[in-house]
Amino acid sequence: MNIVLLSGGSGKRLWPLSNDTRSKQFIKIFKTETGDYESMVQRVYRQILTVDSSATVTIATSKSQVSAIHNQLGTDVGVSVEPCRRDTFPAIALAAAYLHDVQGVPETESVVVCPVDPYVEQDYFEALNALGRCAANSEANLVLMGIEPTYPSAKYGYIIPEEKEAVSRVSRFKEKPDEETAREYISKGALWNGGVFAFRLSYVLQRAHELIEFRDYQDLFKKYDTLEKISFDYAVVEHEPHIEVMRFGGMWKDMGTWNTLTEAMESPSIGKAILNETCENVHVVNELDVPVLCMGLKDMVVSASPEGILVSDKAQSSYIKPFVDAIDQQIMFAEKSWGSFRVIDIEEESMTIKVTLNAGHRMNYHSHERRDEVWTVIEGEGRTIIDGVERKVKAGDVIRMTAGTPHTIIADTALQVIEVQLGKDISVGDKRKYPSPKNTDIDSHKFQP
Amino acid sequence: MNIVLLSGGSGKRLWPLSNDTRSKQFIKIFKTETGDYESMVQRVYRQILTVDSSATVTIATSKSQVSAIHNQLGTDVGVSVEPCRRDTFPAIALAAAYLHDVQGVPETESVVVCPVDPYVEQDYFEALNALGRCAANSEANLVLMGIEPTYPSAKYGYIIPEEKEAVSRVSRFKEKPDEETAREYISKGALWNGGVFAFRLSYVLQRAHELIEFRDYQDLFKKYDTLEKISFDYAVVEHEPHIEVMRFGGMWKDMGTWNTLTEAMESPSIGKAILNETCENVHVVNELDVPVLCMGLKDMVVSASPEGILVSDKAQSSYIKPFVDAIDQQIMFAEKSWGSFRVIDIEEESMTIKVTLNAGHRMNYHSHERRDEVWTVIEGEGRTIIDGVERKVKAGDVIRMTAGTPHTIIADTALQVIEVQLGKDISVGDKRKYPSPKNTDIDSHKFQP
Repeated sequence: MNIVLLSGGSGKRLWPLSNDTRSKQFIKIFKTETGDYESMVQRVYRQILTVDSSATVTIATSKSQVSAIHNQLGTDVGVSVEPCRRDTFPAIALAAAYLHDVQGVPETESVVVCPVDPYVEQDYFEALNALGRCAANSEANLVLMGIEPTYPSAKYGYIIPEEKEAVSRVSRFKEKPDEETAREYISKGALWNGGVFAFRLSYVLQRAHELIEFRDYQDLFKKYDTLEKISFDYAVVEHEPHIEVMRFGGMWKDMGTWNTLTEAMESPSIGKAILNETCENVHVVNELDVPVLCMGLKDMVVSASPEGILVSDKAQSSYIKPFVDAIDQQIMFAEKSWGSFRVIDIEEESMTIKVTLNAGHRMNYHSHERRDEVWTVIEGEGRTIIDGVERKVKAGDVIRMTAGTPHTIIADTALQVIEVQLGKDISVGDKRKYPSPKNTDIDSHKFQP
Repeated sequence: MNIVLLSGGSGKRLWPLSNDTRSKQFIKIFKTETGDYESMVQRVYRQILTVDSSATVTIATSKSQVSAIHNQLGTDVGVSVEPCRRDTFPAIALAAAYLHDVQGVPETESVVVCPVDPYVEQDYFEALNALGRCAANSEANLVLMGIEPTYPSAKYGYIIPEEKEAVSRVSRFKEKPDEETAREYISKGALWNGGVFAFRLSYVLQRAHELIEFRDYQDLFKKYDTLEKISFDYAVVEHEPHIEVMRFGGMWKDMGTWNTLTEAMESPSIGKAILNETCENVHVVNELDVPVLCMGLKDMVVSASPEGILVSDKAQSSYIKPFVDAIDQQIMFAEKSWGSFRVIDIEEESMTIKVTLNAGHRMNYHSHERRDEVWTVIEGEGRTIIDGVERKVKAGDVIRMTAGTPHTIIADTALQVIEVQLGKDISVGDKRKYPSPKNTDIDSHKFQP
């Protein structure tokens, strides 16, 4: 199976766990069999590989998510990076060109496109596999998944099939209706449109070449910012007369808000939390090291992270976005391809962060114009390169870098560092990157930001 | 006026703002006219000095609060330190001996004793002043303040006066009654007993010498741990036939719980907080640097500090103590006589703290057996003494101390330092103190912990 996972979204709706660099799909909130927690993207990736261990998985996403994807899924997963946001048609066209030109997928094979964040069981991916086989062999150019509705939702678009068979031609598409109209649609056999569909690679490449002038993936990537913003529905689906729909009757949930997310939580709390006996229908997700004590709460969600604290009635939590938009605060936590960092103190002329590097990874070789830095290694072993000079470091070592000095740190084992930044004008933009010094034995592909 | 403020309490009830080292009276929660915040003890101290600028104020407290008292009130305030907890009679006897032998207060003068944490206005301290004058001139040996009840409370003891005059002989004392009995008492003219009373110094010293064998303050201090635990009520009040009560009809609130504390807050929030329009009767006290977003809450208190996060229904918040007792966590924030510290990161073999030293102050000269330390100065100027060698330091300087090396830092201006502690067995108990090196020009009295 070739599968493209569309990974978008800013993550405002699940603040404070999500922020501008960490979308909701990267929050580790689902308990695995081993007792660890995994994110939506990790869960979906694991489920796909369980159903089809040879699946070609490609994540279509923006630049800002690439670090988090490699951090959570490793470097084997394919990533089709959109240089900027241009809606779903250019994104799918780019992913299709990536599959063909970079991954070498033959034009005759089918591709399944699916959002990265459905909360589903294994049977869903078995259905995707079937959807792909169907698209490869069907006379139709597009095969959609139609989810059997469990209630008359006004949140989804509807697909009205011609027949009640497992696979049927599509009669009509319907935009998000009101609840009453939804009830009517459902009585006529309508299915939810979850944005999941499959096609032969040749079909989408052909449509892409008809609408965009480009040679190959590299060329399309280069001119991506000149492309028109247009949805796949508008550019392709609406003009295609040969569309089929395949029914799916299994569990399917859309994890868009705190309300729906907490429904999928196995226990009332993740992280340090105490709920007294008078709490009812309360969920706590606490990423901080200190406890959250809840007393006498009903129908509420409480979440604490390095970004902030949310205390909300569950129904109210769906109105969170404008309030989060109005919060003007720097990123306090980020996952990078090489590990993660967390801001632990901010003063006017200093900032202190805790840097965690995964074993075998390293930072870019870089310098800052307007700040000095001090590293105190608190765990692990590795090497620093300061102004071209390599040196072994371990827990307890202290390294000073004055402004302008190129520097990097390489983690031979997992490494933790307290970094104190000192200067009058500290900003993430103050960074100059240099090519990697040659005499280091680290694979360079791991070192992209 | 000579006034003794009894400052006790562990601070569990106002967690997470209070903890084992920061009692509720030190939380800065009351807005002053200049827009800053002051604590209960700062508010009371300021109010006393406004009413009587020459008042001799003595705080009777335990060792653990001395740092916070000097940090918040400066070094001019008198402090009678109880070497261990021995209930109110030994504490008041010790404070009386301290006033007489250390502060030189004549035996003929009166002393007013009052809890450190009433939430009151100026008129209360004018009443205390009058109470003191009354005790100096009265034939009675004790004059109590009787607060005119505003509702039939079951939380307070009652004083039944003989007459309705401003000052009357006491007819009877009543223990905390149920609400109905309280109503009965009030109909008979009973007053609340707020634990406020005045006496001539000679009287309490005489009672103390009758019950305890001691020469003077130093002697009493030395044998304090051998004294019997006994309350002032039981040891003195119950045996005293000549007691008067003076009425007080002004505002008086006891700030024991989150519920009563939030009633005294001028605005719904302190610190970074956003309350959406559907919040009703919600108070937020946030000591963290990140925002708290509240949506759809009713009758609730939310508080966040380096110690943890409380989210509670206001009525439920009075049952907090057992939950806080069960939280086993190290102190994350403390005020010291020289400034404060905050734990900002904890790992298995390291701990990172932010140390703030007030100008002109310094740490004790000390060493640790089982940890190295690294200081990075992030703000201000000062001097370090490492193994006897003094050196000037300023923002950007890094100082390393290996285990066993005596060290201290002296703040010439306000100073902030990131301290990384490194070792396998980090504990607050691992501290050896040394006498101050002689060649420093800092007043030694400021350097007590």
